[in-house]
Amino acid sequence: MESGSVRSIGSADRREAALGELAGRFGARFSRAQALREQHGHTMSRQANQPPDAVVFAESTEDVVAVVRTSAAAGLPVIPFGTGTSLEGHVNAPFGGVSLDLSRMDRLVAVHADDLDCVVGPGITRKALNLQLRDTGLFFPIDPGADASLGGMAATRASGTNAVRYGTMKDNVLALEVVLASGEVIRTGSRARKSSTGYDLTRLFVGAEGTLGVITELTLKLYGIPEEIAGGVCPFASVEDACRAVILTIQSGIPVARIELLDALQVKAVNAYSKLDLAETPTLFVEFHGSKAGVAEQAENFGAIAAEFGGGPFAWATKPEERSRLWQARHDVYWATLALRPGARVSATDVCVPISALAACVGETVRDMVSAKIVAPLVGHVGDGNFHMQVLTDPGDRDENARADAFIERLARRAIAMGGTASGEHGVGQAKLKYLEAEHGAALGVMRQIKRALDPDGIMNPGKLPG
Amino acid sequence: MESGSVRSIGSADRREAALGELAGRFGARFSRAQALREQHGHTMSRQANQPPDAVVFAESTEDVVAVVRTSAAAGLPVIPFGTGTSLEGHVNAPFGGVSLDLSRMDRLVAVHADDLDCVVGPGITRKALNLQLRDTGLFFPIDPGADASLGGMAATRASGTNAVRYGTMKDNVLALEVVLASGEVIRTGSRARKSSTGYDLTRLFVGAEGTLGVITELTLKLYGIPEEIAGGVCPFASVEDACRAVILTIQSGIPVARIELLDALQVKAVNAYSKLDLAETPTLFVEFHGSKAGVAEQAENFGAIAAEFGGGPFAWATKPEERSRLWQARHDVYWATLALRPGARVSATDVCVPISALAACVGETVRDMVSAKIVAPLVGHVGDGNFHMQVLTDPGDRDENARADAFIERLARRAIAMGGTASGEHGVGQAKLKYLEAEHGAALGVMRQIKRALDPDGIMNPGKLPG
Repeated sequence: MESGSVRSIGSADRREAALGELAGRFGARFSRAQALREQHGHTMSRQANQPPDAVVFAESTEDVVAVVRTSAAAGLPVIPFGTGTSLEGHVNAPFGGVSLDLSRMDRLVAVHADDLDCVVGPGITRKALNLQLRDTGLFFPIDPGADASLGGMAATRASGTNAVRYGTMKDNVLALEVVLASGEVIRTGSRARKSSTGYDLTRLFVGAEGTLGVITELTLKLYGIPEEIAGGVCPFASVEDACRAVILTIQSGIPVARIELLDALQVKAVNAYSKLDLAETPTLFVEFHGSKAGVAEQAENFGAIAAEFGGGPFAWATKPEERSRLWQARHDVYWATLALRPGARVSATDVCVPISALAACVGETVRDMVSAKIVAPLVGHVGDGNFHMQVLTDPGDRDENARADAFIERLARRAIAMGGTASGEHGVGQAKLKYLEAEHGAALGVMRQIKRALDPDGIMNPGKLPG
Repeated sequence: MESGSVRSIGSADRREAALGELAGRFGARFSRAQALREQHGHTMSRQANQPPDAVVFAESTEDVVAVVRTSAAAGLPVIPFGTGTSLEGHVNAPFGGVSLDLSRMDRLVAVHADDLDCVVGPGITRKALNLQLRDTGLFFPIDPGADASLGGMAATRASGTNAVRYGTMKDNVLALEVVLASGEVIRTGSRARKSSTGYDLTRLFVGAEGTLGVITELTLKLYGIPEEIAGGVCPFASVEDACRAVILTIQSGIPVARIELLDALQVKAVNAYSKLDLAETPTLFVEFHGSKAGVAEQAENFGAIAAEFGGGPFAWATKPEERSRLWQARHDVYWATLALRPGARVSATDVCVPISALAACVGETVRDMVSAKIVAPLVGHVGDGNFHMQVLTDPGDRDENARADAFIERLARRAIAMGGTASGEHGVGQAKLKYLEAEHGAALGVMRQIKRALDPDGIMNPGKLPG
């Protein structure tokens, strides 16, 4: 399937008939209201709004099967929708169709504390999940900036600040229930911690962005809440120095739980938005998980490494209130960035490179930003080699937006050229389809073969992966 | 593709012509010698020997492309071969064809110490890799019992004693180079630690057992050799008590690097074969990785948990010689088991269950063994819920072999019924195809769609996955 062409999109009559059938079945849970359609055809990116023909609120796997079967028969696209916090236009409906809103399938179905796993509906958000887990002593660590749904997080292979220690969604989904384009329901694994029997369908659907099927249930790994959590901030003279400290920290095997870089502008934005008084210089936010003695050892070892690169003073603390305030501020960088320039729009873009290339990639990117006259605070999960540029533009300034587009494109191609990827965690959506060929080469052909095999009529989230 | 039927197997004439073409191209690296063919049609399992038509020794990706293209054109199966240590008949040639021996593609191509990764040929073995890494301070942790090739380990999604801490091959392969059935060469990823761009082809080929393509290069994660390693043995009164101690150890978040259970009979076998003098009772072998203070803390916490379940005395040490002797003995259990009963054969079978089901599954299995009059030492990576029965049979005793087959089948179905899998790490090969339907249900249909899409003529290791 080439980008922009969708095979077997049904005729207008058949599509209308299918929409009528869904209206009949779902009643008040089916809507063609303009505002709702627009809300569902739009994300936190600056992709143009592309509303679906209708929105259906599913409440069960059976509902999803019904929507998929009815839509597939009529060639009507189906676009899974969680919380709409995608950053690359994943839920837009360039070919119309049904936005399948899964936010009501938000149950914590089961907690298996002995096995350190749980079963959830795709609509539960990460904060809601951890709130419901609070009495078990367990938590789910993956934390993208937004309070995203777990189904959406799996579909985009999300990660976040804890990934350097706990991995990404790829590493933390044990099994999925998926409704295929055929309407068939499959389970992709068991609750065993490992298996060598068969193709890894769990990892195939994680990151497929709803283009191979609809995730209707997830079995997730959980972790014991650490006995002790310590954290703090460490200022540096330059982003390169901070990157070098990160590289040595990782290489030294310090099991850091979070290690986040904010550049001076991002710190300024955070200070203003979250009422902090950090020194406005490149800064690492770090956190350590372990026993009391273990976190103290980690913090001391990190402090020594930071000092080697001119970083510090590094003050660390274990008080929950201070930590929470700091990390809430970190999670709010999108809003803090928006507040830097009232009326502007933020295009959050991310890349990931081998960590040895991190300092060079960050350095070149910052120089590019300056020469392109772009304002874009930098924040990153630098322990993974992953960083974000929060590109601020005035929606009415066509020249600035064109410069921003070109800057974002150069960043993606720079990361690929350095042996990295066009996105470490935001995904492809529509905005990054154009880099797949450069990044994957002939492997893109295999992705297209798989797409054709599992969704021959191209009804699952068309116009997205694999392009 | 149904099990046992291979589409488009070429005519005898075309196959002979292709073999002649390969003979001409590869000269002394092509052989139809009976002994070599039999060595390549046989593994450490008790599957009947099924020799290929010929063996080709590949020395480059180009060689692999040539073999695949020539074979595919003639409908001649291609069966990748590493070291032949598979336990479930993965390399047997039930439909003849070419055994593609990759053992000479054994280079350590590159070490990126800063990025904690390396690039290797598929034929390098795990011991050879770690030997070549010894001056870097880094190591690759995955250690199946045999000194298997990395290509074979990836193809079977292998793990081993360290998986409870470092994960399996699924978690430690960053990217692959693969030759497809079409002869096309793809790369499945970059050296970035994470990516959200596209379907996860790396994880699709890991565990595909050579049925979707031939792995010709691997990019692997490496780890710093821990500052301190401590370990020891801890005896228990029963396997159930030992399992309960394991469950609590994992739940408590002790980051144990290895935690292995041997039952009394396995300890007896190990004592005799490896000249140890362990108490012949169910025993946990454990190992801790970390800082000096960290491993001491872990060992003490583990000792306290073991004591809760009547385990002990738990003596731990950090001397490398003692540890090496112990873990070499652990890795030699296959040979120790064989030595228990001269002339007998060992069928090593494994299952994996959610850890909460481990004590029950082990208990039922041991009772079943006794009532079926089977002799089968138990050894397991119990931190993952994964255990092995090393079933000893007299090759000439049909009744005993029939009882062993039935015992192994009951074990696989018991694990599936308890929410687990028919194999945690050995894979499917031919011997476990019959459990795929029970374990995967409708998902097996998706595996077959993928197989058909990527290998429409069924030439890649036919008669194996997905059945």
